[in-house]
Amino acid sequence: MRSRDMVEVVGFDADDTLWQCQDTFDDAERLFLETVSPYASPGVDLKGVLRTTELSNLAISGYGVKAFGLSMIEAAVTSSAGAIPSRDIGILVDRINDMLREPVKLLDGVADALHAVAQTHRIVMITKGDLFHQTRKVQNSGLHHLFEHVKVVLEKDVSTYRAVLNEWGISPSTFVMVGNSVRSDILPIVELGGFGLHIPYHVTWEHEVVDAPKGTFCTVASISDVAEWLAAEHQS
Amino acid sequence: MRSRDMVEVVGFDADDTLWQCQDTFDDAERLFLETVSPYASPGVDLKGVLRTTELSNLAISGYGVKAFGLSMIEAAVTSSAGAIPSRDIGILVDRINDMLREPVKLLDGVADALHAVAQTHRIVMITKGDLFHQTRKVQNSGLHHLFEHVKVVLEKDVSTYRAVLNEWGISPSTFVMVGNSVRSDILPIVELGGFGLHIPYHVTWEHEVVDAPKGTFCTVASISDVAEWLAAEHQS
Repeated sequence: MRSRDMVEVVGFDADDTLWQCQDTFDDAERLFLETVSPYASPGVDLKGVLRTTELSNLAISGYGVKAFGLSMIEAAVTSSAGAIPSRDIGILVDRINDMLREPVKLLDGVADALHAVAQTHRIVMITKGDLFHQTRKVQNSGLHHLFEHVKVVLEKDVSTYRAVLNEWGISPSTFVMVGNSVRSDILPIVELGGFGLHIPYHVTWEHEVVDAPKGTFCTVASISDVAEWLAAEHQS
Repeated sequence: MRSRDMVEVVGFDADDTLWQCQDTFDDAERLFLETVSPYASPGVDLKGVLRTTELSNLAISGYGVKAFGLSMIEAAVTSSAGAIPSRDIGILVDRINDMLREPVKLLDGVADALHAVAQTHRIVMITKGDLFHQTRKVQNSGLHHLFEHVKVVLEKDVSTYRAVLNEWGISPSTFVMVGNSVRSDILPIVELGGFGLHIPYHVTWEHEVVDAPKGTFCTVASISDVAEWLAAEHQS
């Protein structure tokens, strides 16, 4: 392990690191396909239309349930050439509201793990998405009081992390970021001179891992391993 | 005028203080009424349905164009009992995307006024709404570089202002907040021990003004008067 300063602050990603997220979007996508396919011309790639609509709206809408919901409605209208009845649009709108309203589903072991880490380190949250919805999730998680700072950002890139850590007066060399995405949670922090701790979601190894320089970050199997990893790090 | 510290930092609201906002929502509401009314039962209060839908979604959606857009679509489906064709829903979706995409329309004199104030004071922006859309507007305004800090908040109440000023290390007694809403931009800051400078939008006096204690804040006719007001304040 490279020589580095003592870890003082641990940052956590939220979606699919602390609580479930992607599964809800996948469910909504299945509902979209079921609902719209009776009205789409045969051979139309509905999934492709949804993805293209989302991507083309990203620059004006950003990430999050509301942006996804508006893209889903737009894709339903365009891919059916206006043939889908608006009652079915209503089904999609109801699902979006359900997504915004649904309780936070903490992943296994998260509450215990955060309490354990918070006993030895300052902890913060840096999460991407919709300010309103993410703030609501943090507040409803019952874990809000453990975090010294919570920040909802638009993109997780080097310049954003630099600005956030700077704002909080945290030196990257004393900072570890914990998350499920190598691209968003790990590599930018490594580039800044911090450390990344990767927790794969759904125990699926991401392809980006291969491209990352060896030894720049570690992977643990679950959030329950974070406290132990930190203890070992401090002894090394 | 009460005795107070020297003003060091000037905070600006954005929507309808620096750039046009409400007019765009009003236009979209007119489009909603035009588009949906052919399919609504006679006597249905479409405006009322939209307002009620917006209000009931506020707790899960917050403020902003995307939240408004989803409420508009929901209200179109429910108030027509599913009779509105989805092509017309497509018209509403297009308008929402246009709203998200539209250029920032600075109000008269804003650029000059901000440059003038920034020569003598540190300036910051505190604005309510959607993080993504507001950030995009700030960046496209061409005025971003003038602001020491920009914060998008969910609500403009005493506790939010207290937290934001505290985070930035600004003492309320040295702070003036400039905005078009007495309720959101002025009174909470006054309660914190700061000062408020009210710029009525559309030269319409708001009713809340009457309820506010006399002498707690000032009103100027336009943003072009802010620098002069600050200069007079410093001489008093």
